[in-house]
Amino acid sequence: MKVGFIGLGIMGRPMALNLLKGGHQLHVWARRLESMQPLLAAGAKPASGGAELARDCDIVISMVADSPDVEQVALGVGGVAEGAEAAGRTDLIYIDMSTIAPSSVRSIAARMAERGVTMLDAPVSGGEVGAIAGSLTIMVGGVEAAFECARPILACMGTTIARIGESGAGQVAKACNQILTGVGVAMVAEAMHFARSSGVDPAKVREALLGGFASSRILENHGQRMLDRNFKAGFKSWMHQKDLRIVLDEAHKMGLALPNSAATSQMLNATVGSGMGDDDSISILRLLETLSGRA
Amino acid sequence: MKVGFIGLGIMGRPMALNLLKGGHQLHVWARRLESMQPLLAAGAKPASGGAELARDCDIVISMVADSPDVEQVALGVGGVAEGAEAAGRTDLIYIDMSTIAPSSVRSIAARMAERGVTMLDAPVSGGEVGAIAGSLTIMVGGVEAAFECARPILACMGTTIARIGESGAGQVAKACNQILTGVGVAMVAEAMHFARSSGVDPAKVREALLGGFASSRILENHGQRMLDRNFKAGFKSWMHQKDLRIVLDEAHKMGLALPNSAATSQMLNATVGSGMGDDDSISILRLLETLSGRA
Repeated sequence: MKVGFIGLGIMGRPMALNLLKGGHQLHVWARRLESMQPLLAAGAKPASGGAELARDCDIVISMVADSPDVEQVALGVGGVAEGAEAAGRTDLIYIDMSTIAPSSVRSIAARMAERGVTMLDAPVSGGEVGAIAGSLTIMVGGVEAAFECARPILACMGTTIARIGESGAGQVAKACNQILTGVGVAMVAEAMHFARSSGVDPAKVREALLGGFASSRILENHGQRMLDRNFKAGFKSWMHQKDLRIVLDEAHKMGLALPNSAATSQMLNATVGSGMGDDDSISILRLLETLSGRA
Repeated sequence: MKVGFIGLGIMGRPMALNLLKGGHQLHVWARRLESMQPLLAAGAKPASGGAELARDCDIVISMVADSPDVEQVALGVGGVAEGAEAAGRTDLIYIDMSTIAPSSVRSIAARMAERGVTMLDAPVSGGEVGAIAGSLTIMVGGVEAAFECARPILACMGTTIARIGESGAGQVAKACNQILTGVGVAMVAEAMHFARSSGVDPAKVREALLGGFASSRILENHGQRMLDRNFKAGFKSWMHQKDLRIVLDEAHKMGLALPNSAATSQMLNATVGSGMGDDDSISILRLLETLSGRA
C-alpha cells in the first residue's frame, strides 16, 4: 500500500521505518526537513505536507505531540482534509497514533467525516524500544471496516493490535494504560521508599513480592531500575505528566473522582517542576526522597 | 518438631493443618474452644494457653488480628514469655505470622529477647486460598540462626520463604506488599471506572493492556473479578484498611510522604464506611461509581 507518514520524532521515525521494512511504499512529511533525512535515505519519498499525502496515499498516519498538532495536521491549512477534498476522495483512511484526549479525537473524527475522511485513533504503548522492535501495543478506535483495512499496516508496527470500540475508544484504552503505568510507577516508588527508610533492603522486598499478588511488570522492570538508580528515560516524566493531564481533564468533563490518578498527577507535576522532566517517570522516587529529607 | 499454634481463624486454621500434614506434632490454643475442634479432630493436642505451649514446644507460632493481640499472646499473663521463663528455657523460638506494625514487632521482639525468647516476624501474603494450598509467601524478619531453624516449619505453609532482614523486616516487606496490592486494586478500579464511564467496554481495555507494561496479577485477577462484578472476599476491605493504616502510621513516624498510599487508604475508609467492609477490597470500584453518580 501507499502510506503517508507525518511526524518523524522518537516514536514516528522507527514506526515509519518498519512500514518500509514491511514492503509498503512510504511518503513522509515532517515540519523539520532534517527529521525526514533518515527516512529518505531508507527509500521513502518526500512530500510537501498533509494535503499532498492525502492526494497520493491509501492511508495517512500521524504521530505528533498533542491535540493542537493533530488538529493542525488533520484540519488545518494544507492538511489532510484539505488534500482529500481537493482530490475529490472519499476513500481515504487517516490514522492518528499520537496520545491525545478521547474527546479531542471524537471531535476531530466527526469533522473529518464531514469532509469525507475516515479517521481511526490508534495510540500505542511500548515506548521507543517497542517502536524500534515493531512490538507496540496498538489500541484502536473507529469504524470496523476501516480498522480491518488498516490492520496489515498497523501489524508492521505492533504485535498486539486491538480494536477497542468506536471513535475515541483507542484513546480511552491508552488513558487507562497511562493510569496503570503512572500510578504503578508511583506505588512501586512509594514501596521502595518505605522499605529503604525503614532500614530494609528494597531489593529483597522486591524479590519476595514478585512471587505473589503484588507482582507486576512495573515492579519487575521499573522496580529494578529504581534499585539501579537508573533514571534515564525510558518514558519521560513530562510525557507521563501530559498523559495524566488528559486523564484528569476527561475525568473533570465526566465528573469522575480518580483519587490515585490525581495524586500521581500531582507527583508528576512536582517531578517536572523539580527539573526532572526529561528523566524517566521513575524519578518520582527521587521526588519522594527529597520531600522527606532523604535525598 | 513439636509446634505450638495460637490463633485458629480463617488463616491460622489451614496453616496449622498444613503443619500436621507435614508430620509435625501440633499443640494448639485459641480463645474460643470451638476454633480448636477441627484441629483436635485432625490429631492436634489442646493446650491451656501460650505459657503451656512455651513450656512444651520447640517453636510457638501465633496468627492473630492486631498488635494488642500479639502483645497479649507474647508478653501477657499466661503468655509465651511467662511460660518460657517459668520453664527456664532460653532456646524457644516464637514466630508471629500476624500482620502488625514493624515498630510494634521490634518493641515486642526486644522485650521477648530480654526474657530469653527469640522472636521472628513472619507475615504472609496469599490469603485463605494460599493458606489452604500451603502456597503462601512468607516474609521473615529476625536473626538468621532462628530463621534457618524455623525454615522447615515455614516450608509446610508457604512456597516462597524469604528472610528480608532483622527484626521487623518481615513486616516492612508485608507493608510494601499491602501498598502494592492496595494501590494496585484502586488504580485498576479507576481504569475500569474511567473506561466504562467513557462508553468503552472495560473487558476489551483489560485484554489489550494485559499484553504491555500495564500488566499485573491484579489487573489479571482482580480486574476480571471487577468485570464479573464479583465482590465476595477474597481479601476483606476492612483488613486492607487496617494494613494501610499500619503503612501510614509508620510513614507518620518516619516523616514520609506516600501520596498514593494515602489516597487509597482514604478510599478504603470510605468503602468500609459505606457498609462494604466485609466485601473484597475491589469494592473500591463500587465506591468510585457511587461517588460519581454511576452506581
